[in-house]
Amino acid sequence: MTRKFNFCAGPAVLPEAVLERASSEMLDWHATGMSFMEMSHRSSEVVGTVEAAEASLRRLLGISDEFAVLFLQGGASTQFAAVPLNLAAKGGALTYTNTGQWSRKAMAEGKRYGEVIEIASATTDAPRAIPPQDAWISVEGAAYLHTTPNETIDGIEFHWVPQSDAPLVADMSSTILSRPISVDDYDVIYAGAQKNIGPAGLTLVIVRRELFGRALASCPAMLNWETMDKGASMYNTPPTYSIYLAGLVFAWLEEQGGLVAMAKANQKKAAALYSAIDSSDFYGNPVAMADRSWMNVPFTLADSELDKVFLAQAEEAGMLNLKGHRSVGGMRASIYNAMPMAGVEALVAFMQDFESQHG
Amino acid sequence: MTRKFNFCAGPAVLPEAVLERASSEMLDWHATGMSFMEMSHRSSEVVGTVEAAEASLRRLLGISDEFAVLFLQGGASTQFAAVPLNLAAKGGALTYTNTGQWSRKAMAEGKRYGEVIEIASATTDAPRAIPPQDAWISVEGAAYLHTTPNETIDGIEFHWVPQSDAPLVADMSSTILSRPISVDDYDVIYAGAQKNIGPAGLTLVIVRRELFGRALASCPAMLNWETMDKGASMYNTPPTYSIYLAGLVFAWLEEQGGLVAMAKANQKKAAALYSAIDSSDFYGNPVAMADRSWMNVPFTLADSELDKVFLAQAEEAGMLNLKGHRSVGGMRASIYNAMPMAGVEALVAFMQDFESQHG
Repeated sequence: MTRKFNFCAGPAVLPEAVLERASSEMLDWHATGMSFMEMSHRSSEVVGTVEAAEASLRRLLGISDEFAVLFLQGGASTQFAAVPLNLAAKGGALTYTNTGQWSRKAMAEGKRYGEVIEIASATTDAPRAIPPQDAWISVEGAAYLHTTPNETIDGIEFHWVPQSDAPLVADMSSTILSRPISVDDYDVIYAGAQKNIGPAGLTLVIVRRELFGRALASCPAMLNWETMDKGASMYNTPPTYSIYLAGLVFAWLEEQGGLVAMAKANQKKAAALYSAIDSSDFYGNPVAMADRSWMNVPFTLADSELDKVFLAQAEEAGMLNLKGHRSVGGMRASIYNAMPMAGVEALVAFMQDFESQHG
Repeated sequence: MTRKFNFCAGPAVLPEAVLERASSEMLDWHATGMSFMEMSHRSSEVVGTVEAAEASLRRLLGISDEFAVLFLQGGASTQFAAVPLNLAAKGGALTYTNTGQWSRKAMAEGKRYGEVIEIASATTDAPRAIPPQDAWISVEGAAYLHTTPNETIDGIEFHWVPQSDAPLVADMSSTILSRPISVDDYDVIYAGAQKNIGPAGLTLVIVRRELFGRALASCPAMLNWETMDKGASMYNTPPTYSIYLAGLVFAWLEEQGGLVAMAKANQKKAAALYSAIDSSDFYGNPVAMADRSWMNVPFTLADSELDKVFLAQAEEAGMLNLKGHRSVGGMRASIYNAMPMAGVEALVAFMQDFESQHG
């Protein structure tokens, strides 16, 4: 068995220790004679595991009891609808910042449920940048302000928290758990699991309970945050095996020193990669320095004719999934929590070597 | 490691061969250097695995191209809303048969989206029975007729297919793949995976494509069957690992001889268990002979004071999760595909032994 360096944007690399544990426990979890995925979601073992995962996540992110923590299904794409369905009943425009492709998908879904206003847009020419908040459109009495703190495809990231009178909603799919945040600065945080949390098929929602009671009558029970909170994520059968794996990832994060340690490691990885890109005319990155993502680093080769050779040689050298999203082309290295520094060092060395051959 | 006999209603026992394969492939799937759950859902490996799982399921159930096969998330509970959201736009009442608790949950969700009419109800006194179709209320121009072919909690099952002018919808969560069916007799079949398919967190929908175009405008994209079909279950990141496991289960079913072989084995298991119940005054089952479930066998002890002792001794003897649903009490043995005859034989022997001690 040879594990490779996997730069996939998601589903993404997981900590090897987590996979080893899952493999060894697959047929007989804690001497129960059953796989964890065969166990009743009402059993003390599963309920205890879900509770422990929630407690670990609350410690990692410093989540107070004012917030519900929900383990749901359907991905961020389901939350694109759930956000207006849960927050639009009191009226007001549905406001969004548009910083990339995921922002636009969230907005498109919002249009089913109310008047959508795009109050700020990232520039489209390089260097791409997020406008400062004093340049944003002001909207009175909005139902919420939706933001995408990190754009997985575009590689653009908010390194600051917007101020908002309306409830602040954040799609943190590709940035959650990569560093400490103040959850209190937000009202709703949601994230697909398949980047920094666990396998695809699990969706995390952190929501201020004060916001319950604003759901549209047409909101399906399974998309209603209040209903899910009352059921303690057990309104129906939850994705138990995925929650178990997420719990192992949370425990691994705590063992690594928590999110302060993750932030240090992630910043170091990102700095090394951006430095390699910026110090060369052979490579380029289209995003303004201040708004560059720590998690998803898109980069281009000066000569795009070389893209295929670059990808083929990288794969041969054990570096996988470096192809950029089909909508933007070029390369993209996703360097989530589970990507070790060694992976970034290997990539940087490969890039320098490739440049010396082809530059 | 000692594997037990797990009679849980769901999440339920899985074939040991499937769990062994999953365990061995956890860190390095087919020499890719990655776990399957770490791989891009757009990669040829994942796309190929999803396609192979669909092809296997189509062979097992004899599903024609008139039907879309969708691997979704959110469980049957999400489909309770998705059914009216996808089928109610042309008007007409939402009609349901009420044969147990899951029927009633589906109806409750339907009420958000239209006029619900309960056209038939199982009797509530023992022996509980499904009324013949000529006793059902007739409704002209219904948007659909929703049925629950097997009631997991109540242990009641349709052993015949209702005739319907309206599109026939079936929640087959706890009966799918337990025997051959004629998919053409239905218009929509859906099922949570956690009984006969795979782990919780995957939902199967089989829908006649002719029905597309009847969705309400408020239907979230992620609940829209047509949208999901166009995306080939890849509109967003699907629960890839759960689909991989389901594919292993489908392959295992084909190796076992397919659904004809499953039907034989399941009928034999059910017959052995019902025979043990019926041949004794110590045990009872409240369901009419003709409507008894092959999958979920509820039974009571004449003296319910003995329930706790029964459960404790059964567990000691390696038979787990025999406690009935909290809403009905007594016992319940769920004997899905992956429960071997040996498990049922062990249970019958234990029941006889227990009766000889306490009867």
